[in-house]
Order: sequence, then C-alpha cells, then structure tokens
Amino acid sequence: MALSTHKETDLRNLILERATKLFQLFGYHKLVMEDIARAVGKSRSTLYLYYKDKDAIFGAIVEREIKAYLAELTAELQQHHSAVERLRAYFRIKFNFRYAKATEYLIMNQEMAQQPEMVNRMRIYTDPPETEYLMGIIRYGIATDEFVALPDEQIRLITTMMISALHNIANDVLVNVETANLSSVQTLLQLLFVDGILSR
Amino acid sequence: MALSTHKETDLRNLILERATKLFQLFGYHKLVMEDIARAVGKSRSTLYLYYKDKDAIFGAIVEREIKAYLAELTAELQQHHSAVERLRAYFRIKFNFRYAKATEYLIMNQEMAQQPEMVNRMRIYTDPPETEYLMGIIRYGIATDEFVALPDEQIRLITTMMISALHNIANDVLVNVETANLSSVQTLLQLLFVDGILSR
Repeated sequence: MALSTHKETDLRNLILERATKLFQLFGYHKLVMEDIARAVGKSRSTLYLYYKDKDAIFGAIVEREIKAYLAELTAELQQHHSAVERLRAYFRIKFNFRYAKATEYLIMNQEMAQQPEMVNRMRIYTDPPETEYLMGIIRYGIATDEFVALPDEQIRLITTMMISALHNIANDVLVNVETANLSSVQTLLQLLFVDGILSR
Repeated sequence: MALSTHKETDLRNLILERATKLFQLFGYHKLVMEDIARAVGKSRSTLYLYYKDKDAIFGAIVEREIKAYLAELTAELQQHHSAVERLRAYFRIKFNFRYAKATEYLIMNQEMAQQPEMVNRMRIYTDPPETEYLMGIIRYGIATDEFVALPDEQIRLITTMMISALHNIANDVLVNVETANLSSVQTLLQLLFVDGILSR
C-alpha cells in the first residue's frame, strides 16, 4: 500500500514534469491530453484518473511554480533588514520571475497577450500570496519610519494597486519578450515604486 | 447641397447622442443596430449609410469622449506651472474620467471586467494621445529639475509603464464602481506616482 502511494506520487510528478515541457512547446490551446498521455507512456484514461482535464494539470503546474517563487522571495527578504531594500528585492524578484516565465512559456505568453482573460485566471493563484507578502513589507516600512504612515485599510488598497500596476506593466512590456529592455524596465520599476520620480 | 450636408451632420450627431444613451442602458453586447435605428426614427438600412456597424458607432462615440477629455486636460495643465502639479492634475483628471465612464456605462464596465480584451480595444484610441501628454509633463519636469533626469528612451518607457499601471489599477478598483473608495484611491495614486512612499 505504501509502495502504491509512492508510485502514484511518482506518476503525478512525472505527469507534471512532462506536461510542463509540453505547455512550453505548444502553448495552452493546442496541447491536448493525448499529448501528455503519450509523453508519460500511459493511456489517456489512466491520465484522467489523476487529473480531470488539461486545466487541472496546468493549475497544478502553476501552483508548483508559485511555491518555488515564494520560497525564493522568502529567502531573499530575510537577507534585508531595511523595508526599502525588501521592497526593492520584491519588485526585482517578481519582475524577474514574470520575465523568466514569459521566456520559458513563449507561446503561452503570446496567447495571453491575445486573450487577457487568461492573465486574470492566473491571478487567482498569484494575487492572494503576493498581497500578504507586499502588505507585510509595507507594514514593516511604516513601523521603521521608512515609509509614509498609512491607516490599515489604505495599506491593503495601495498593495492591491501596486500588484495591479505591476501585472499590467509586465504584460505590456513582455508582449515582445525577446526585445524587451529588461535592465531599463528594472531600473524604472524601482524609480516608480520605491524611490519616486522627484529629484532630491 | 450645403443644406443636405448640414442635415447629414445633424443626423450623425443625433445617431451618436441616442446611441450613447443606448450603450449606457444596455451595455455593448446586447445592443443591436435596430435599437439605434428606432431611437433616431430611421430604418436600419438608412443607419447603415452612415455607420457600417455597431462597432463603428461605438468608435465614433469613444473618439468624441476622448476629445472632450483631452480638452479638459489641456485647459487644466495650462493652469499649473510646476511639473509636479501638472503630474498631479494628470492623474486626478485621468482617474476621474475613467471613474465617470465606469459610472455612466455601468453595464459595459461589468462586461469589460469579464472580457478584458474589450479594454485592450479601447486602449487603441486612448494610449497614443495619453503617451504624448504624459511624456510632455515628464520632459518638462526634467527641464525644471523637479524630476530625476532620464535619457529620452527611458522617458518613453516610464511613460508606457505609468499608463499601463494606471489602466490596470482603474480596472481592478472600478470592477465594483459603486463601492470603490474614490478619495482613498486618488490619495494613493498621488502617493504612488508623484510623491513616492518614502517618508522624508
């Protein structure tokens, strides 16, 4: 029984690994369950015992990637003691993550530019944990007097605004990911959201 | 001949005025050309002599509204001599315009939340003139030493980023336009894009 559960976990992992590569190769729309079944050497009906459809497999892949991203973010934030540095790190890591995914999933990135509702479906996975992280940084910065003091309901609202803003900036800038000037975008993100554009 | 041209212009204006009210009442998807024909007291085939489809009428309405918005923006900006005040006015007027439209076109606002590609189609009309205005303000602020100096290609990029950011903030915040806390959003927009969140 333990062996069987172990095998099941192995097969689930194999499905997700192979499906990840297939989503990267074909994009979302043109990939069918049959492709994934072939890539794991099982029948389509076996595959359906594990995942009810393509969307469920994709959801599981997204969850794994976000988990890895949040682990990286946590590790990085712990290295910084000032809220300004944490906020800087947040925008850098978040944008780099989005950029890496746009490059790895090139066709899906193009599909998302054509069908923005795909982006909204992804945000169901990404927005809640992002909101918690970013609110934590802002609260910390207010406590250390680095940031302007804000009442609690405005902390939530400005966090939502920052996340909304960064989503659309990434989408617009990364439509043509091969030609995007990543280092300029990074510099200007810091200027917009951390330092501000006023000269001192 | 002059009279006939005059009458044609009158009828075009009447079509746009009545269609505006119908789009506000029914939203985009459920409105049909027949409704507009009824509201102007003409046959559908007469209507098609003036506009080839519903989308052409909607495009003409959007162009008129944007023209009025840009006139308001121009008048307001001329009253401010500092770039900081101009930037503040820009974000205030732009957000108020978007808020007013979300209220006037309540059903269409809900349709857009469901189908974000509708937003992208609107941006074809709005983004080019916005970009020129905002780049002008940033260039002016660099000339007056109010803003951090940026090379020209970065001025264009940061302008694009600001416009992208504000689009998504408005979309996310105005999904439930009746309950949106407009004054907090206004305050935080100024904090995000003009003053910066660092305490001084």
